[in-house]
Amino acid sequence: VREGKQITLGALAEAIGGEPEGDLNLVLSGASGLEDAQPGVLVRVEHPKFLEAALACPAAAFLTTRDLKAPGKPLVRVKEVKLAFARCLELFYPEERPQPGIHPTAVVDETASVGEGATIGAYTVVGKHARIGSGAVLHPHVVIGDYAQIGEECVIFPQVVIYDQVVVGARSRIHSGAIIGADGFGFVWDGRRHYKVPQVATVQIGSDVEIGANTCIDRGTTSDTVIGSGTKMDNQVQVGHNVATGPDCLLIAQVGIGGSTTLGRGVVLAGKVGVADHVRIGDGVVAGALTGIWRDTPAGARISGNPARPHRDMLRIWHATPRLPELLRRVGALERRLGIHEPASDPEEDVPGESG
Amino acid sequence: VREGKQITLGALAEAIGGEPEGDLNLVLSGASGLEDAQPGVLVRVEHPKFLEAALACPAAAFLTTRDLKAPGKPLVRVKEVKLAFARCLELFYPEERPQPGIHPTAVVDETASVGEGATIGAYTVVGKHARIGSGAVLHPHVVIGDYAQIGEECVIFPQVVIYDQVVVGARSRIHSGAIIGADGFGFVWDGRRHYKVPQVATVQIGSDVEIGANTCIDRGTTSDTVIGSGTKMDNQVQVGHNVATGPDCLLIAQVGIGGSTTLGRGVVLAGKVGVADHVRIGDGVVAGALTGIWRDTPAGARISGNPARPHRDMLRIWHATPRLPELLRRVGALERRLGIHEPASDPEEDVPGESG
Amino acid sequence: VREGKQITLGALAEAIGGEPEGDLNLVLSGASGLEDAQPGVLVRVEHPKFLEAALACPAAAFLTTRDLKAPGKPLVRVKEVKLAFARCLELFYPEERPQPGIHPTAVVDETASVGEGATIGAYTVVGKHARIGSGAVLHPHVVIGDYAQIGEECVIFPQVVIYDQVVVGARSRIHSGAIIGADGFGFVWDGRRHYKVPQVATVQIGSDVEIGANTCIDRGTTSDTVIGSGTKMDNQVQVGHNVATGPDCLLIAQVGIGGSTTLGRGVVLAGKVGVADHVRIGDGVVAGALTGIWRDTPAGARISGNPARPHRDMLRIWHATPRLPELLRRVGALERRLGIHEPASDPEEDVPGESG
Repeated sequence: VREGKQITLGALAEAIGGEPEGDLNLVLSGASGLEDAQPGVLVRVEHPKFLEAALACPAAAFLTTRDLKAPGKPLVRVKEVKLAFARCLELFYPEERPQPGIHPTAVVDETASVGEGATIGAYTVVGKHARIGSGAVLHPHVVIGDYAQIGEECVIFPQVVIYDQVVVGARSRIHSGAIIGADGFGFVWDGRRHYKVPQVATVQIGSDVEIGANTCIDRGTTSDTVIGSGTKMDNQVQVGHNVATGPDCLLIAQVGIGGSTTLGRGVVLAGKVGVADHVRIGDGVVAGALTGIWRDTPAGARISGNPARPHRDMLRIWHATPRLPELLRRVGALERRLGIHEPASDPEEDVPGESG
Repeated sequence: VREGKQITLGALAEAIGGEPEGDLNLVLSGASGLEDAQPGVLVRVEHPKFLEAALACPAAAFLTTRDLKAPGKPLVRVKEVKLAFARCLELFYPEERPQPGIHPTAVVDETASVGEGATIGAYTVVGKHARIGSGAVLHPHVVIGDYAQIGEECVIFPQVVIYDQVVVGARSRIHSGAIIGADGFGFVWDGRRHYKVPQVATVQIGSDVEIGANTCIDRGTTSDTVIGSGTKMDNQVQVGHNVATGPDCLLIAQVGIGGSTTLGRGVVLAGKVGVADHVRIGDGVVAGALTGIWRDTPAGARISGNPARPHRDMLRIWHATPRLPELLRRVGALERRLGIHEPASDPEEDVPGESG
Repeated sequence: VREGKQITLGALAEAIGGEPEGDLNLVLSGASGLEDAQPGVLVRVEHPKFLEAALACPAAAFLTTRDLKAPGKPLVRVKEVKLAFARCLELFYPEERPQPGIHPTAVVDETASVGEGATIGAYTVVGKHARIGSGAVLHPHVVIGDYAQIGEECVIFPQVVIYDQVVVGARSRIHSGAIIGADGFGFVWDGRRHYKVPQVATVQIGSDVEIGANTCIDRGTTSDTVIGSGTKMDNQVQVGHNVATGPDCLLIAQVGIGGSTTLGRGVVLAGKVGVADHVRIGDGVVAGALTGIWRDTPAGARISGNPARPHRDMLRIWHATPRLPELLRRVGALERRLGIHEPASDPEEDVPGESG
């Protein structure tokens, strides 16, 4: 656990809107989960079942719920522990913001505009007519294309590439290696070769979006790819051309979304989900990890499996699947009992890893 | 829709080899699909069922087939609408080519050669004895290794890394974040640790290849990894060491290909397909998204599922799968009818997301 | 096959601890597999079944097992051919090490320390208080964050980003595009938006770790993400926050590991394996490609499928699966025979690619 800023129990409780118990002048210097507790830190204790372990750990204070009993232990009670814990981390460990200004090695085109208080890091390149919002941070080694726009207070980590014309809304945060606005994948066979369909639209990213490391969002063919405000993407996500996501979606690592697909508001796609192209996913759909989505999916559906099915049905199928070999045997026995001769139609299936 | 170049209906028809109808002097300023139509643009109308919507939209003209009837509407008739549309996009939105020349911040080794008319962008690094073909564009922040060769008229986007000795053919296009020629994954357990097998061969990429953002192609162990001319790869594709693909393959996003696997001519692997190592995939094989390929696959096969099966068989299996729980029940009923007592062998399967 | 250093048969045998046969002064200039054999090279012949082809190939000598008979052919006998071959590749093709020193264009913060004999490439940026170990190689275009530590003799390829505070052990090797220490994916819904949980811990990477191109390892929330010494990761692997892997794991391309999951010693996850969050994988577990792991997995298990099952069971299921449509028909026939009328409950399943 990193040493954080020093904050008294009383000040912390006030800052996060919680009720303190114990010495208000107790100085805390960090926050952690129970398993990493160290002297001086505040630990999160969300459930009474962890109380015993919490009391035994060296932490100085608890962040806990309204009704947990821990007589004598300094603590802060809040309604939503997870949310309050996030706020505590902000307070103890404020993100260091690089000095505003343009690093002498940055190459900013003379036609580009850079807002007040923005930071342009070493070797960062800003193209023609690009606009960097006030207070934005471009870390070192960022490349911003011509006519691109980066909203105010955005943070762009090293080695992000923003292609020409891409628009990023305010306060968005883009992690290293993310590539925004590369060509969508479009080719037509012309009888001799795959003829390239130029991808002449761009990408519009809303405000308060987070984009994970090495995630790719392709530019549109003739209409823009659109990412709704408040949407958060993990690492290595792939978003095809002409996709539109609603606001507040969560796309977990290694999700892939085919071209022209649309996601409603608040859609959650867990890790490695694949979505075909030209599919409409309704508001609030939740897809479990590894789901393969091929069809339009109604709002509110909870789905899993490949091809995706309602999660409830998929559970039944997953339960039944290991009994399939047994079922074959049992049906054979029934047939024999009734004197039915089924031809042995074993397709001599070739399955993976047989010899291994 | 971006404002494109201004082109008259007559000039456009001539350029794409189509038959114009209406005022040949009508000035068009862009092209789009129907859903983005704006005044002044040409829209693609590929099927009569869209005719009504097309007539109601503000577009100035249609790009359409030989036989669509739209009396009074300016249009261009072509045989292949998709292909002609790609050409229209080229004409309205020609890709801007950066000025030739070597940016003063580029670090080009004195032993490297740079062809006539090539562009070397800001901060791009070109290694010893590397050769950059004439007319090639290396955008800013590209790294070209020692002895690497980049063919004429290639376009390499920012933050591509080309390792030592890699050869890229003419007119290839490599998007940001792609990594060509990193070590293949080879280790031998020596009793104490995973001992590294040096990867001493390289990667040979044909001409007219497109490589998507953050795609990786590993260098070979002792024989080169080879990508056939005209092959197009989407984003986040992974190609293992010693792989050889034929010409004109299409590898969609997040495909992964194991070491020493070979792909014939014109193979299509849809999104997230995984191919084991040492597998031979014949000419023209088409694998649906999420297919897991473990075995040699004959030319022309259309496959899907994991493990991959002929698509036709897989459809039957996918249809039958949701009936598996019902089947268990029905077989139980049959057994009861015949007085057979099957021991309850329920393996108490542990399936994902049960509690959720 | 690249031209390698010239080494005599005798010297090579001595260097790799093998038994030479034939002219000890025979000069060899490279090593390859059988399919790439060229005059002057040593080829690997691991199994007698390849002997005939080996004798017909132009190679100058064989690297082979203790008991292979090839009268008159120069050869080196070893106990472990694969391992000895790796050593031969090292000897013939030693990796070129860039000149030590700091390139004039590198931006190294004055508070950073750079060990003796280290190389800092063109445009590489080293942050405040960072420590670069002796003999480490940072290729061009690497970004090292504040307070990060790179162990001695590490090799970091171009365009790797090491975020603040990340620690990398000695002799580790990180390929281009890898992103170490980006934020873990943590958000709490606060009723209006996904509220970010600051990720204030970091990543600790052991010694002798290899990390593939475009792989991402996220920083921890309040406890560090930890990669055990000797672990090797392929390209495009995703490791979530708070994960801990044991030593000597192998993570093949496109593996994804959810947050807070732990892997024991020597775990092998083949290509595209997905592991849920908060899962414990025991020592020596081997998961086949495309496995989906949702639950704790005991040491030594060999698993495959999604949801993962013991590989042996999964083989039976994979064999039985294609017979499911036939089984439906057979059960229907049994019911008709017994006069049972099952209502036709066909759920009109919607499956992928039906129309295609």
